[in-house]
Amino acid sequence: MIATEIKNKFEFILVEPSHPGNIGASARAIKNMGFKNLSLVKPKGFPDDEAFYRAKGAKDILENVKIFDDLASALKDSTLIFGTSARTRTIPWPTKTSSELKDTLDNELKNMNSKICFVFGREISGLSNEELQMCDYHIKIPTEEDFSSINLSHSVQIISYVLKMEIDNQDQYSNEEQSSLTFQDNEYLIEHFDEVMKKIDFYDQENPKQVKTRIRRLVKRLKPDKLEMGILRGFLAKIEQVLNKKN
Amino acid sequence: MIATEIKNKFEFILVEPSHPGNIGASARAIKNMGFKNLSLVKPKGFPDDEAFYRAKGAKDILENVKIFDDLASALKDSTLIFGTSARTRTIPWPTKTSSELKDTLDNELKNMNSKICFVFGREISGLSNEELQMCDYHIKIPTEEDFSSINLSHSVQIISYVLKMEIDNQDQYSNEEQSSLTFQDNEYLIEHFDEVMKKIDFYDQENPKQVKTRIRRLVKRLKPDKLEMGILRGFLAKIEQVLNKKN
Repeated sequence: MIATEIKNKFEFILVEPSHPGNIGASARAIKNMGFKNLSLVKPKGFPDDEAFYRAKGAKDILENVKIFDDLASALKDSTLIFGTSARTRTIPWPTKTSSELKDTLDNELKNMNSKICFVFGREISGLSNEELQMCDYHIKIPTEEDFSSINLSHSVQIISYVLKMEIDNQDQYSNEEQSSLTFQDNEYLIEHFDEVMKKIDFYDQENPKQVKTRIRRLVKRLKPDKLEMGILRGFLAKIEQVLNKKN
Repeated sequence: MIATEIKNKFEFILVEPSHPGNIGASARAIKNMGFKNLSLVKPKGFPDDEAFYRAKGAKDILENVKIFDDLASALKDSTLIFGTSARTRTIPWPTKTSSELKDTLDNELKNMNSKICFVFGREISGLSNEELQMCDYHIKIPTEEDFSSINLSHSVQIISYVLKMEIDNQDQYSNEEQSSLTFQDNEYLIEHFDEVMKKIDFYDQENPKQVKTRIRRLVKRLKPDKLEMGILRGFLAKIEQVLNKKN
């Protein structure tokens, strides 16, 4: 399965969201991470301009949103359900933190017809006990203990980010420039520094061996790329040239 | 060090945010994850009721916010700087994704005086090239390729969540007898290179702006320690001295 197909098996469900802005911001958040399925249970004030404004380029998500009268209807064909919960409830439930999803997901995604739901509660009061008990797992986003109430669309953003990280291959994002210079190229640079330092009597002031070792270590750590090597060697050569002219 | 002390070494900097709501939501986002330091560079419309409304219980963060006229001033005593960037720039910069922060942070947190900044750009246009080049690393939050613009406060939420996960999962950070050089120290070195390059007419041969940017990038990547800084500054000063004598 490619990442897009996997992501289409996920559904984000907001239960009675009361700020249209949060609905729009949630749409944008899930689309940023490559998801597209958003459901609303009894939203207050939707559709609404504020929702579309906050969605920015994710208006398509809002246009395809599914609206339900209660959570049970929204969950009908779900195969795995996570309910977000900030508080510890009276009835303990299997609970995962947002960083412990991997194994559960890996397992579920092996199924042909999997549909994985993440349920988010009301801005003020969260999910009711009855709603939480419809979930297979409760999921907790770790927060500061005495300030645990995360904005609704921000919770959606964290969960969708974490899911994307689990689903995607992370290798492809790094674009650090690779250095193709050889050991010998770096040695030439170190020697060049050494020569110029001798010519300007820099070593009179310092311990020569120590300084050269430091320069070596610095070049090794820097691992200059080709362009940087050109600048550094050119700079040193130019110093020599100026010094020669003056003599 | 306990987690709270570690988190106090972090600073979140918003450059020219134009929606007060985003400032408030960012304050709430960092406080949810246990951070407290928020700086603003030339905010539009702050202080503002909307910011305080969106901050909810994080009004204390807004009351203690620091405001600056430019990014360089906000960064003055920073020891490690990450700039968020959605786009790939013409001059590739060392780049981390939000899931690759661990080693870099582990290393930096060993230093006594570390101050680690995460810089977030304008809602529409992000950070300028000049601002991005003040950063040691660019940091990229992986997103869907064709819908990469994350809401400002949502970006702050993801980064602060990732940082909390990294910090809380550490057993302990011990302070070594080491202190990092600051942003300003590195700026002095870059300027010193620039001055010497001008004096020896190095720029006649090359594209001056391009060369200075390359030197900047090189210094940022190198992150010289105190001894190396002493050698490099001493070396440049000695060149100037020799040139002056010859005149």
